[in-house]
This record gives sequence, C-alpha cells and structure tokens, in this order.
Amino acid sequence: MNEDDLIARHFAPLAGEGGLGLLDDAARIASVTGHDLVITCDALVAGVHFFADDPADAIASKALRVNLSDLAAKGATPRGFVLALALPKHDEAWLASFARGLKRDSEAFSFPLLGGDTVKTPGPLMVSVTAFGTVPEGRMVPRTGARAGDALYVTGTIGDAALGLLERQGQISAGQGGAHLVARYLMPEPRNALAPALLEHAHAAMDVSDGLIGDLTKMMRVSGVTAEVKLADVPLSPAARSVVGMDEALFTRALTGGDDYEVLASIPADKARAFEVAAEALGVSVTRIGEVKASTQAPTFCWADGRALNVVGGSYSHF
Amino acid sequence: MNEDDLIARHFAPLAGEGGLGLLDDAARIASVTGHDLVITCDALVAGVHFFADDPADAIASKALRVNLSDLAAKGATPRGFVLALALPKHDEAWLASFARGLKRDSEAFSFPLLGGDTVKTPGPLMVSVTAFGTVPEGRMVPRTGARAGDALYVTGTIGDAALGLLERQGQISAGQGGAHLVARYLMPEPRNALAPALLEHAHAAMDVSDGLIGDLTKMMRVSGVTAEVKLADVPLSPAARSVVGMDEALFTRALTGGDDYEVLASIPADKARAFEVAAEALGVSVTRIGEVKASTQAPTFCWADGRALNVVGGSYSHF
Repeated sequence: MNEDDLIARHFAPLAGEGGLGLLDDAARIASVTGHDLVITCDALVAGVHFFADDPADAIASKALRVNLSDLAAKGATPRGFVLALALPKHDEAWLASFARGLKRDSEAFSFPLLGGDTVKTPGPLMVSVTAFGTVPEGRMVPRTGARAGDALYVTGTIGDAALGLLERQGQISAGQGGAHLVARYLMPEPRNALAPALLEHAHAAMDVSDGLIGDLTKMMRVSGVTAEVKLADVPLSPAARSVVGMDEALFTRALTGGDDYEVLASIPADKARAFEVAAEALGVSVTRIGEVKASTQAPTFCWADGRALNVVGGSYSHF
Repeated sequence: MNEDDLIARHFAPLAGEGGLGLLDDAARIASVTGHDLVITCDALVAGVHFFADDPADAIASKALRVNLSDLAAKGATPRGFVLALALPKHDEAWLASFARGLKRDSEAFSFPLLGGDTVKTPGPLMVSVTAFGTVPEGRMVPRTGARAGDALYVTGTIGDAALGLLERQGQISAGQGGAHLVARYLMPEPRNALAPALLEHAHAAMDVSDGLIGDLTKMMRVSGVTAEVKLADVPLSPAARSVVGMDEALFTRALTGGDDYEVLASIPADKARAFEVAAEALGVSVTRIGEVKASTQAPTFCWADGRALNVVGGSYSHF
C-alpha cells in the first residue's frame, strides 16, 4: 500500500469540504467576512508526549485535543486541521484505530480534516497537528493582555494529568481515584464550550499545558504584570486531593507537571461575576484562583497563612 | 536553554505580524475580503527526505521551498508558515544556521514565520511546515480540472534532482554537470513567480515532487482523463542530457525519481500561446510536453517513433 492508498482508505473519509477529498495538493478555507483565522500547532512524539503503546485512537484524540485546547483559550471556533504523520511502520490495524479516533473527535468538535502529509520515519511515531479556528475580526483573546486588577480563573481541575502520569509510572498509588487520574492524562477535555465567554469577557487567556505555575508565570511575564495566587483556591479533583493530602511535594508536582489542558483566563474584576454566570450557562466549571498585580516580579503562590510554595523549576518542559 | 529561550533566540526574530512575536499560543491571519486561504503541508524526515548531515540552512530552505512549490501550483500568493520541529539534540550552531536558512527564504519569498512547536525527539530530525497562501475567492487552481484537449506544460527542467541524488550517492558520475545536479537536489527552486499565469489560464496544476510520470498520472486520474506525452519534448538541463545520453533506464529514473519541484499545468489549447507569453513575462521557462485526451486509460509516454517508455513503478515514493 502506498501513501495515496493509505490516505484514500483511512483519511479521505474524514475530509471536510475544504479538504477537497484529499485529492489535491492543498486545502482551502473560504474567506469568512469579518473573521480572522487563528492558527495553532502542537506536535506529539512517542516516548516524549505519550507512550508508544497507548491506544492509537487515544493518541489521535490527544493530538487533536491539545490543539483544540489552544483554540478554546483564544476564543476561537474550531474550523479544521491539517495532519502531518510520521509513521515508523505500516500497520493497518493501528492506522484504522488512529483514523477512528480522529473521526470521533473530528465529529464531536465539528473539526474536519483538511489535509496533511504522511511520511515514513526510522524514528518514533510523530503526530503534528496544525489547527484552524475563527474569531470575529480583531477579537482573538491574547496571552499578553492581563492587567493589574484582573481576576484569574482556571477551568476544571488542576494536576490530574500530572498525577495520572505518576500513577501510570507506578510512582504513586492513587487507589480508587487512580483510573480517573490516568484517564485525565490520556484524554484531555478541551474547554471549547467556554470560547464565547472568553471572547466576551477575557483580557487574556492561554491553555495550561506545561503546568499551572509555569504557564501562569509566562502569561504574567508577557503581559508585563504579576499575580498573587491562593493555593487553597486551586481546584483539585477529589482523586487528586486524596493523593496529594498533606504532601507539599506532590501538590507542587500537580501544579507544575503539565498536560492539564485547562484554560487560564484573566478577567476584569468588574466582569468576574458575569464571566462566572456565562461559564455556568455554557456548562464549564471555572474557579477564581487569584489576582493580577502591577509589578514585574515573579508571581507568588501562597497558602492561607501567607507562606509561599517553594517551587524549584516551575514548569514541566516537554522540550 | 528551554523551549521558550530557544524560540526567543532563534525564531522570534523571523515572526511576521501575524506571528505576534511568537509570544502567544496561536498565530492570526487577518481576514482578506474576497480571498480564500490555501493550505498545504509537507513534512521532511532526516534520512528519508534529506541527509542528516546536509547543511542546516539548506534543510530549512528545502522545508520551506517544497511547500512554496505547492502554493505556486495552486496559483496562491504565499502569506506565511507554521513550523513543527522535532530536534534530536540541542545544538546552538545547528539551530543558528537553520534559523538563517529560514530567514533568507522567508525574506526572499515574503513568507513570514507565524508560529509552531519545537519538541525533542529520540529519533531523527523532522521538519514539518504548514504553509498558507491566498487566492481570489473560488479561484484556487485545482489538481482535478484537466480537460480533454488541454495542452500540458512543465516549468524548468525535469529530472535534475533525481540524477543529483544518484550523483551524490556515487551511483553515477556526471562530471562537470554534477554540481548543478546535486544543487538541484539540495535546493528546489519553487516557481511562485508563475502563480498569476496559472490563476489566469490553468484548468489544473500540481507541483511535480514524486516524479513527472507518477504525478502526471495522478493528475489525469483525479481529473478523469488521460494524456499523451512526447518524451522528446520533456525539458532536460544540459547536465541531465549529458548524463542520460542514450541510457533509457537513466532517462526513466529522471522522469520517476522525484524532488523536481517544478509545476505541471493543464492549459486550454486556445490559451496556450497566452500562457507561454505570460510565463515568459514572469521569467519562468515553460515547455509544452503533451496533450490531455478523453479516456481513463493510463497516460502514454512515447518517443518520436511511437515507441512507449517501459515504466516499472512510475513514481518514487517517499512513504
């Protein structure tokens, strides 16, 4: 089976209108008057970003969802994606499962395949997705727009995936909550439903993929401000709370370990209540975790008694 | 040096306006009223698509140019690109050279960097580029539009890169012309200058990247037609002609070996002269090599005496 046959069998059935049946050299996105295109790209490598023996459909889902998460944080409506796939071998069953995973999420998120490239590699599997969304003209929610006085929010719960990875590696034993944590590592839940509320209210937003502490620090730095985060307010799932208990090292790991794919948003204080109401109406849980302050110092992460968390490093680096 | 530092040092200086200084999660392409976006993606893997020890700036150029070539064939004006880079190690000198190559061609083709992702890999270097161009609404030149009666044209010369690869591997010895052939393998010359003439005149076009015979066969198949190509009319460079001589096996290799990055275009017969004039005005050499016929048989590639070339395979497969 050559590349064309492979594409015709596994990928052409997923092609959206702009993908032209994957018969052309290129895809097309028709102009949408009054809208900007938002573009994001995340690449995943076996052994670095996932385990090579993860189910193929889960790898496909993760590759789409980490990109959908970026679009969500920008307030963008998903429009489609391009897939570059480097395959170490030809395995029909694996490809069929991978294509099923793509199809499932492509349909669930109205996110058609537009094109791509399939190549062989003597190295590990690599999946690189370039994702497209649209926002009303000039309205993309930036990472750089946080202002002193803003309230900081995160969606969902923080740290599950980082603890799920530890559980999977046998470094912790989370008991009953273990399956939840591992599932959160394997399968991100991008918060695309929240996009309209971010467009309406957020000064700035980004998706939390490299750990809350590192990513929040990054957003404050590029916005030219700092933040005070109340650790007691950071939302943990019951499973994460049960694992972390009183262990500050594990709590730190939960806040720096990455793979959350939740949204961090900076909301003007006078819009905070409206944002909470909008998020609830959209079915996305959001939690206020701190405030933006006018300083270029590093953000502080403090317990209720004022003691700061001792963070070494701060961010998990996939690189 | 972490990923952020690497990006800030090597890639942020290349970012176009839509790249937002590479400080955000996403890039933006502002809506261009009355224009469609054309998207193409080509991934290159060390040891498959180039030699791992090729100069880093040449690898960068090739990654951009193979994508620029796709945009050219679609009649699109280049607007920018997103880069996914999987690095086997951190090598500052290599990265600096790679970034220089990107910068050179980014400037030469008005093709700004918009964003991307840099990851580490335990495998070979991989460079995946997703490229963007614009065409007037509904005007992208398709691969599927060739019609019976059209004249078939190619740009430049065919087979140089395939022979250059053989020269480089020591399988042939091309003498004085060797350097030209190797250079054509290492550094494609995308025909973006021809885009306006293709937009104006072409029923169909594609870039020749997997060998003229295979790619022409593909274009005829998806257009539901066939073609008769006159082998004596296929343009060869003096270096290629000197190597090929009377050796039909080498000539076949030149027509099937890939990496040409020339444009194959199907032009209505009554526009053929106007297309030639337009191409000349744009400084791109084009050669008429055959005609499109109404049949779904495979295309024929014939010598002047009517004898057909005996092609086994037909197309080099990178996959």
